[in-house]
Amino acid sequence: MAEYILASQNGRTIPTEDAIFGVNTRASQCIREYGKENVIDATIGKLLDDQGSLLVLASVDEVYRSLKPEEYANYAPIAGTPGFRKAAIQAALKNNTLKRIPRACAAPGGTGALRLAVGNYSSIGDTILTTDWHWGPYGKIAGEIGRSVETFRLFDNDRNFDVEEFRSHVNGLAEKQDTLLIILNSPGQNPTGYRLTDDEWKSVIAVLSALPSSKKIALVADTAYIDFAGDEDDVRTFLPLFDTLPDNVMALLAYSFSKTFTLYGMRCGALIGLAPDERTAEEFSRVTEYSGRASWSNCARAGQAIIEHIYEDPALLERVTAERTEIRNMLLARGAAFGEEASKCGLDMLPYNGGFFAVVPCENAKEVGLKLEKEAHAFTIPFGDGLRVSLAAMPMTQCRILPQKMKDVLSSME
Amino acid sequence: MAEYILASQNGRTIPTEDAIFGVNTRASQCIREYGKENVIDATIGKLLDDQGSLLVLASVDEVYRSLKPEEYANYAPIAGTPGFRKAAIQAALKNNTLKRIPRACAAPGGTGALRLAVGNYSSIGDTILTTDWHWGPYGKIAGEIGRSVETFRLFDNDRNFDVEEFRSHVNGLAEKQDTLLIILNSPGQNPTGYRLTDDEWKSVIAVLSALPSSKKIALVADTAYIDFAGDEDDVRTFLPLFDTLPDNVMALLAYSFSKTFTLYGMRCGALIGLAPDERTAEEFSRVTEYSGRASWSNCARAGQAIIEHIYEDPALLERVTAERTEIRNMLLARGAAFGEEASKCGLDMLPYNGGFFAVVPCENAKEVGLKLEKEAHAFTIPFGDGLRVSLAAMPMTQCRILPQKMKDVLSSME
Repeated sequence: MAEYILASQNGRTIPTEDAIFGVNTRASQCIREYGKENVIDATIGKLLDDQGSLLVLASVDEVYRSLKPEEYANYAPIAGTPGFRKAAIQAALKNNTLKRIPRACAAPGGTGALRLAVGNYSSIGDTILTTDWHWGPYGKIAGEIGRSVETFRLFDNDRNFDVEEFRSHVNGLAEKQDTLLIILNSPGQNPTGYRLTDDEWKSVIAVLSALPSSKKIALVADTAYIDFAGDEDDVRTFLPLFDTLPDNVMALLAYSFSKTFTLYGMRCGALIGLAPDERTAEEFSRVTEYSGRASWSNCARAGQAIIEHIYEDPALLERVTAERTEIRNMLLARGAAFGEEASKCGLDMLPYNGGFFAVVPCENAKEVGLKLEKEAHAFTIPFGDGLRVSLAAMPMTQCRILPQKMKDVLSSME
Repeated sequence: MAEYILASQNGRTIPTEDAIFGVNTRASQCIREYGKENVIDATIGKLLDDQGSLLVLASVDEVYRSLKPEEYANYAPIAGTPGFRKAAIQAALKNNTLKRIPRACAAPGGTGALRLAVGNYSSIGDTILTTDWHWGPYGKIAGEIGRSVETFRLFDNDRNFDVEEFRSHVNGLAEKQDTLLIILNSPGQNPTGYRLTDDEWKSVIAVLSALPSSKKIALVADTAYIDFAGDEDDVRTFLPLFDTLPDNVMALLAYSFSKTFTLYGMRCGALIGLAPDERTAEEFSRVTEYSGRASWSNCARAGQAIIEHIYEDPALLERVTAERTEIRNMLLARGAAFGEEASKCGLDMLPYNGGFFAVVPCENAKEVGLKLEKEAHAFTIPFGDGLRVSLAAMPMTQCRILPQKMKDVLSSME
């Protein structure tokens, strides 16, 4: 346990150094020593072009430059400008009209959106449920405000969503708690790239529908990678299913504009509530706005103004969407290439349907990762029982050669 | 108590409607009915020109437009870019070189900086100490993460800082708690415009120095309005006094770039730790970075990039400073005019030395405020036992006429 001198631990375990930071430092060192062209840096969670530069949509950059001082320098309302909130719902739901009542509250990125969900739809001391393969910050967001995380096995033996494991953990926690918040990251899951099928979502809903109606349940779909997971309509077919949830289940979408609009550093996100009725919709706005006020006040306005302009102008929206389709296709082609090569050389990987990342499962992931760094100058992130590979950050050529390198290292360690 | 349907209360009292929001709605209605020129809106916490438009420094706007996509669209490091962190310390301390070790962690505005301070330098369940006249969100920030706020009387009978009240509350809380966090908003306090003198800061330090060294104390100076409180060097003479604090007291500055760089909507702020030694400086970085990661991840990069560019270029910095001096002088002239008129007509006001706001103390502030709205079409914010007047939002002509209007309403109610 860390020793705290003047700071307070408050139940948190705060490491002295971040594990990912360590890998990144070694990658930079390796690049300095061997040259950029001889190193594979598959750690970065941003979409880079084949030359390693950050991809920013030209249409979005134009809107950035067109903003009036008032639009970036002035405060936004706590919940976001009205135009932004409307656009956020449109961006998240696209062509789906739900019976549930949608409400949006601005948040600093997807992290802020998750913070709003956890802070308002779980109780202090609660255990939150998510999958064993999951984005590390879930645990930090929960722990920072006095909650903890329990995981269930994402994949059954056939590498489908393990609904039995889900059911057993949900029921177990619901016996102990009056409130239960569940986070499922789909489509384009970080780290695996998995997407729940609509039938799997139906099973999820069936499990939650079987709980006593006295329980307050929140189902959070973390949709950070939704627009890089496949065709934008195809990956949204699960949304109308939320209309079949019982009234004691709040459906929440943690939506991020970072990837969809290549605006990572603008910290523009939203928590979207899909409420069963007007009262819970009002409650959503009231509690999330309060939490925002008490955590970061309003959110950065520039990103909101950009999104607002894009959704005000159908021609511009079309241009943005077309530009995004192009870079998404580039990403999905990288994923297909990686998968092809993996299959050729017999490298196992978890089901990848889209998104920024894929996982090669292995035992002793840390050790394998270090060996891969040393022998192949390839940098990945150890993630439980596997190595996370950023397809978003690798040029196509590297997607073609990395699988064999990983296979070689794994074989040498058998 | 509010009724919670699907959300969790988590110890918070979340109102259905914000009080300030109510005043603002009435002000807008009044403007529609009687015309902008016949309404005094002294509610707004932003510096407006005499025509009611947001003041944005032209030099800052130029830098905004010059940013490369990489500089606003890319993620910033969690604690802020290295250049920003350096600039944040320079902006906060200016020409003061302290023996204490300064460290900065980026935060979404002053609110985020306070959130980092409270989350890391107080314990869950703690009572935090601040003045009776204080910015409302202190209580919300504390309550959102399981702390509460106790207040002591800011002014003694001579309208100086009430050091005896401070001592008594500090000692009382230190007897009950092992950790104690204190927030003092100076210079240019919101709402009063008060600035502690250096002798008053010395008394504050003496009180804290007398506590047992086993207590972990954090002294937060909320300096949000520091660059609109008077000459930028004069208002910083208290900073070197922090070198005389004992080692069990962490000194923290909640610094906001919103006012100083007219970048409200960019949500650019920093918590600055002035640590007694390298170990506590390291600890500061570790715990604040972790809290940021777990609350909002990184902060918006554009504001950081703007600040970085300004501090890299001495000529630009000089231009920004000169432009700010001009608008600060305008604000301070408004304050002087308001004070002059108040004194002419015998209207009492709390000591104002600078900053965006001033307070006219009165009983039944809500009632007085409503009468002022109705009879004089003048809108202010009731703040405990007084009305907060935004000098930042009123043209000079209104600063000259509002005091008599307030006096009239108060006299009519005697």
